[in-house]
Amino acid sequence: MTGTTQDDYTDRYARRVRGMTTSEIRALFAVASRPEVVSLAGGSPYIAALPLDAVGDMLSRLAAEHGTTSLQYGIGQGTVDLRERICEVMSLSGIDASPDDVVVTVGGQQALDLIARLFLDPGDVVLAEGPTYVGALGVFQAAQAQVQHVAMDADGMIPAALSEAIDEVARSGRRAKFLYTIPTYQNPAGVTLTDARREEVLDICERAGLLVVEDDPYSMLSFAGDAPRPLRARRREGVFYVSTFSKTFAPGLRVGWVLAPHAVREKLVMATEANILCPSAFAQAAVAQYLATMPWQEQIKTYREVYRERRDALLDAMRDLMPSGTTWTEPEGGLFVWATLPDGLDSKAMMPRAIAARVAYVPGTGFYADSTGTGNMRLNFSFSAPDRLREGVRRLAGVMGEELALRAVFGPTGQTRQRRRGAAGADAPGPDLA
Amino acid sequence: MTGTTQDDYTDRYARRVRGMTTSEIRALFAVASRPEVVSLAGGSPYIAALPLDAVGDMLSRLAAEHGTTSLQYGIGQGTVDLRERICEVMSLSGIDASPDDVVVTVGGQQALDLIARLFLDPGDVVLAEGPTYVGALGVFQAAQAQVQHVAMDADGMIPAALSEAIDEVARSGRRAKFLYTIPTYQNPAGVTLTDARREEVLDICERAGLLVVEDDPYSMLSFAGDAPRPLRARRREGVFYVSTFSKTFAPGLRVGWVLAPHAVREKLVMATEANILCPSAFAQAAVAQYLATMPWQEQIKTYREVYRERRDALLDAMRDLMPSGTTWTEPEGGLFVWATLPDGLDSKAMMPRAIAARVAYVPGTGFYADSTGTGNMRLNFSFSAPDRLREGVRRLAGVMGEELALRAVFGPTGQTRQRRRGAAGADAPGPDLA
Repeated sequence: MTGTTQDDYTDRYARRVRGMTTSEIRALFAVASRPEVVSLAGGSPYIAALPLDAVGDMLSRLAAEHGTTSLQYGIGQGTVDLRERICEVMSLSGIDASPDDVVVTVGGQQALDLIARLFLDPGDVVLAEGPTYVGALGVFQAAQAQVQHVAMDADGMIPAALSEAIDEVARSGRRAKFLYTIPTYQNPAGVTLTDARREEVLDICERAGLLVVEDDPYSMLSFAGDAPRPLRARRREGVFYVSTFSKTFAPGLRVGWVLAPHAVREKLVMATEANILCPSAFAQAAVAQYLATMPWQEQIKTYREVYRERRDALLDAMRDLMPSGTTWTEPEGGLFVWATLPDGLDSKAMMPRAIAARVAYVPGTGFYADSTGTGNMRLNFSFSAPDRLREGVRRLAGVMGEELALRAVFGPTGQTRQRRRGAAGADAPGPDLA
Repeated sequence: MTGTTQDDYTDRYARRVRGMTTSEIRALFAVASRPEVVSLAGGSPYIAALPLDAVGDMLSRLAAEHGTTSLQYGIGQGTVDLRERICEVMSLSGIDASPDDVVVTVGGQQALDLIARLFLDPGDVVLAEGPTYVGALGVFQAAQAQVQHVAMDADGMIPAALSEAIDEVARSGRRAKFLYTIPTYQNPAGVTLTDARREEVLDICERAGLLVVEDDPYSMLSFAGDAPRPLRARRREGVFYVSTFSKTFAPGLRVGWVLAPHAVREKLVMATEANILCPSAFAQAAVAQYLATMPWQEQIKTYREVYRERRDALLDAMRDLMPSGTTWTEPEGGLFVWATLPDGLDSKAMMPRAIAARVAYVPGTGFYADSTGTGNMRLNFSFSAPDRLREGVRRLAGVMGEELALRAVFGPTGQTRQRRRGAAGADAPGPDLA
């Protein structure tokens, strides 16, 4: 069997932690992957909540009874069957779409990469929330594009900051190709763009002639009522909608999709064929079968309940244990809390000490294309049980307390303080994330 | 269940058939996918030869007993377990490699795409056999690279033609980045580079400072004795080795790999993370488990026997039925025969008539980056039973006979004749492919 663990997963995040060599990161995470370490890093769903026996039976039948198609090549765009079911899933969020405009991808990641391949030339600018999904930053970096961050507050992206960013790019003579946004239960910030702001953001983008790439992996994982309707449910034109079954079913199958504007769908299909020939017929059949024959919406309710309980455990522990001066977001869904450390603390510099104290997290720097984020960290609550989460916070708070005691003696560096502030609001109006 | 068929698969080949619009191609292949059409197109293995019940049991256990890892995220490079088994598989071909230098990919296609991303800039030249794998041409085209074809004969790539191509690129002031080659049971030509020529080709590339990308999906599917040792078994340096489990196990899982020179492996890992985050943990576990617990080498023997019988059936039928002036290769393994039509016939122009006669093939033009190949076609023998293959050849020969009768009345076009010759040897020394 595979030796994959939750903490292996954090390896790719670690690559983006600046100032450490790959071998240093590997050494650190080799230690971090030990079972005694509480991982608040990673973004893994709690797969043990799935009915694994029933899933196994389903997969067995797919091979035994339908193997000559499910184990064979498929077509680049993905099976008609799965694309129809994806449209049914999207219709629950108010999205009206044709299966003909859906392209099945290897998780949401490949969808982002294909969009980047079609639209980005070296030197182009992408607007994206700051902080944003580390995998998207990897795509934009590979495309040699520049990322202009747009600040958020507790209500998500700040429309005035978006307008200002668009103007700034235009003034500098560069070309912004699209806005990349995770409006709901944002990764890593955990905040959600309000209904009113969704309309504002769409209007701003429409006026600026800016495409929108809406990344929506988490919106079904709401803890209190439904999430606001996706941007694509509000505008058919100019919006790419990207999602995945990684959080609603299982990431190990790597099945995501992009709903594209009709005019570019054919180009996306050609791009994915050059990239991977076709997505896995078996994985597609597995997801289609899961949606067709198993109580998948009940399963999402289970995920919601498990994650809500864990979010509560994490936030309760933070309120009880975190040193004064620490602030954090209070997500209404999804997988992540974004914490802002007391003045003088550097989440990246603190990592080796945290690992030694048997707790892991992702430093904030990984979620920015610039040098900000040293004063932040992302904490995951979907993977670990409530008592483990509390124990993780206890260890983390202990490390932070020790660091603060050291700083009280030797003083913080001015640079650290500056960087932390830059993370969420220095270049933009509006309140801080927390 | 999925509606995928063998003929859906040919859709992506059809895109490369020049002179037809996408909608024309779709219409044509919608007809071609009917069960009454004999498909000699596509490149699908005969999955029905697998022990599907046993595979189903294995997959069921992977989910039920190991679901918390097999359905979870994995790491970008692929699991250590699978990479170790891949090294065992390669060692059977004489390749000595470390699991640390293997990157698991979404089929061989993604491996080619990742290599192209790392090495190709727009305007760069790739040397490749003419004809060559259509999916590789798609990669090089997406990378905006130019393909310089190298002629083959019955013994594979012609070394003198390779030297001449290298010189020609240098004379034109362009930059050749690598040689892309399928030395064994080549797709689409069905020929194999001899032992002596393998050494020559490697020496030529070494002298020219040219990297080699060896694509080796078919070498285990030999019909008489083992294939010559891969290029990578002869040189450790300067050779990328790409392969896949699509032909030895099943393509529906989309598991391939690249064995990279150590110095660039880390860059490949970062490129695949930006592209797909990580390969499917489930698919990787399925392949690793298949290799560990099932008689996979016996299964390959089964594939060999089935395909040898089918190759014989196809070649026998061609000898019996094809119009005079038709020539073809006689593959000693793999999936494909490459046919050269009598003077005056155009395989692309003939397609609608062939489909009407209920037989499908891939016109030769799809396998060249230039305008050659109209006088050729690729015929697949792995998917259809012997009697279906004979029936397909009977229909195809009938269409060709009718076309020849028409040409005898109205005369062939000079252009068609010229293009056909260009396909295999006009620009290079040595005998024709057939």
